[in-house]
Amino acid sequence: MTRPSAAIAGVGSTPYYFRGESAPQTIYEMIGKAVIAAISDAGLEIADIDGMAFYATGFEASQIVEQLGIPELSFAAVVAGQGGGSAGILDLAAMAVETGRAKTVVCIGACQQLGRRYGQSLASLATTPEGVLSLTSGLSGPGQSLALVAQRHMHTYGTRREAFAEVVMASRAYAATRPEAIRKRPLTLEEYFAAPMLADPLCRYDFCVETDAALAFVVTSAERARDLRQKPVNIVGAVHGGKRDWGRAFFWLNQPDEVFTSSGAGAVAEKLYGQTGITPSDIDVALLYDHFSPLVILQLEDYGFCKRGEGGAFVESGAIRPGGLAVNPHGGQLSECYVIGMTHVREAVEQLRGTAINQVPDARLALVTGGPAPIPMSAAILGV
Amino acid sequence: MTRPSAAIAGVGSTPYYFRGESAPQTIYEMIGKAVIAAISDAGLEIADIDGMAFYATGFEASQIVEQLGIPELSFAAVVAGQGGGSAGILDLAAMAVETGRAKTVVCIGACQQLGRRYGQSLASLATTPEGVLSLTSGLSGPGQSLALVAQRHMHTYGTRREAFAEVVMASRAYAATRPEAIRKRPLTLEEYFAAPMLADPLCRYDFCVETDAALAFVVTSAERARDLRQKPVNIVGAVHGGKRDWGRAFFWLNQPDEVFTSSGAGAVAEKLYGQTGITPSDIDVALLYDHFSPLVILQLEDYGFCKRGEGGAFVESGAIRPGGLAVNPHGGQLSECYVIGMTHVREAVEQLRGTAINQVPDARLALVTGGPAPIPMSAAILGV
Repeated sequence: MTRPSAAIAGVGSTPYYFRGESAPQTIYEMIGKAVIAAISDAGLEIADIDGMAFYATGFEASQIVEQLGIPELSFAAVVAGQGGGSAGILDLAAMAVETGRAKTVVCIGACQQLGRRYGQSLASLATTPEGVLSLTSGLSGPGQSLALVAQRHMHTYGTRREAFAEVVMASRAYAATRPEAIRKRPLTLEEYFAAPMLADPLCRYDFCVETDAALAFVVTSAERARDLRQKPVNIVGAVHGGKRDWGRAFFWLNQPDEVFTSSGAGAVAEKLYGQTGITPSDIDVALLYDHFSPLVILQLEDYGFCKRGEGGAFVESGAIRPGGLAVNPHGGQLSECYVIGMTHVREAVEQLRGTAINQVPDARLALVTGGPAPIPMSAAILGV
Repeated sequence: MTRPSAAIAGVGSTPYYFRGESAPQTIYEMIGKAVIAAISDAGLEIADIDGMAFYATGFEASQIVEQLGIPELSFAAVVAGQGGGSAGILDLAAMAVETGRAKTVVCIGACQQLGRRYGQSLASLATTPEGVLSLTSGLSGPGQSLALVAQRHMHTYGTRREAFAEVVMASRAYAATRPEAIRKRPLTLEEYFAAPMLADPLCRYDFCVETDAALAFVVTSAERARDLRQKPVNIVGAVHGGKRDWGRAFFWLNQPDEVFTSSGAGAVAEKLYGQTGITPSDIDVALLYDHFSPLVILQLEDYGFCKRGEGGAFVESGAIRPGGLAVNPHGGQLSECYVIGMTHVREAVEQLRGTAINQVPDARLALVTGGPAPIPMSAAILGV
């Protein structure tokens, strides 16, 4: 394991809002607040910022520079692709710091659901031939696409809806203690099965919450972070990328079961573990991207916490309930707040600082994963 | 000057088309052709590609991976912001190669003007309060914004329209020998002054051509590039970023003359020269971003080829005519083809390989600049 060169020195967030309730703030206003909070958490000044890293929507660096009065940037990059880059921004920031391109990179992510809701059909927004074909054929959003994968997992391995329910119930058990969580009330199996089906086999509770918030992280050199206000959280490893094969099923290209039933993160997981020498049994806290409940099961397999095909039985055994393997102890996107993976990074930092609400005793290593959007996907291991 | 770690090993391009004439190809089809051409120019295979770098529109890496059959990516990033990243993609690619994230990064840029033309008003597309304010107030596109800067340069330094004409005429003189150039016919001063005014002081000829094309560059380690098919072109230095101050004039914030009358590239130029130890007099070929003619004059000042305020007189002296300082010997975006800065990188590579059509004798160092979009802007020095 090589010595980490970069670390997270500060974390900032706006409050978590139910969708639309962040208005009349603009999303840039929320981003500004998150950046100010992160920089002051680190004990730094706005003028120290000289780099920015984004993913997904790729906000305008120049607008953030203008509104906050940042004097100059020497790095500003976006993880290509859609929502899969929430851990990958740490990779870009670490690269910038390692190579001396920037000293203080703020990693920014935000979500504001005004007008369009996450769960809404994208069919009317299709702009490419592929988009028209897939979006108007029933794959009208991320949930509908992931439902295909979940169906295949059920068909191939006998995974049951009870397993998806278990993922949601575990996340609610954690969210119950979190003042900011959007869905705090415990969920029973009966309530789960009574919920409307949205994209078979995904019912309403298998979808993440629809929320607004902005978060920011300050990345600097591991050496400099040691002299700053907070206990540094090292970026032990961070990767982005992935293989071509996953997701091809969405274009009606038949794929072997081990691809079709996966989260697509296998290549990223292999690279991350290979790069760091860390194994799944070393991980104290697993922050697994959970915009839909089955993805947690698929990642438990792909990141090696259980064997291929056994994820359903693994969670049905109660293995990820509080007290078991610590998976999304912040309540995740299913219960706490959906900010396209950003809350997972925040929770990793709080766990490793020892300040988390549902603290895992003596947490030293945290895995954080990004979403399963088309590649690049991403993942990181953080440590103290 | 540190030893360059990364080099351009291959270049590929589609033909250059007048706007719309690339149809019925899609822009992804053009990108695929450019990538195949670049990879085969380098003597590599599609399967060697493991990284991608984009800017501006930020194409979907996953779609390019799918259409070309690239097995896996371990780097895929976008220079944040708008059109200013054409040299910055070399910076991202070099960073990926330096840090071992990827071995073979393809840098991609493309432009296809179907439906919407570059010169067209953006007013109806405004989506932010700032956009509505500026776009509907007359700053309805990049030309209108740059006209403000040009006016200020004329007001402050006595720069004349004859100087803008000279930039265009010099680019036509080069384009005359280029079979692919969209505007090859020499331009007279009388024709220039007879042209319709589009955004005072910019007439029709001060606007770049409206064209379609895709280009790609293969970046790998300088060491590996030495064993490949082509003479390697080293990335001697590459930077992206910039200061907050430039462009604030567009939001009605008064700026000092040295800011208001500049191309905004001062900070990038300073960093690039500082990083490489190279001075303007070392540069054999200057590939200066030229979506509008005055920008060439502003960059001649900002990159130190003449003094502040003297750019107009400098070009009026005939200094950038063929035989003088080699500025855009490919005819640039004003005469050859507009692909948001990509043709400048191609020309730099051809000049340094010694295969350019308007070859500068014994060219060893080339400066390439990106556009003056809001930051990040970018620039690179390439060398052999």
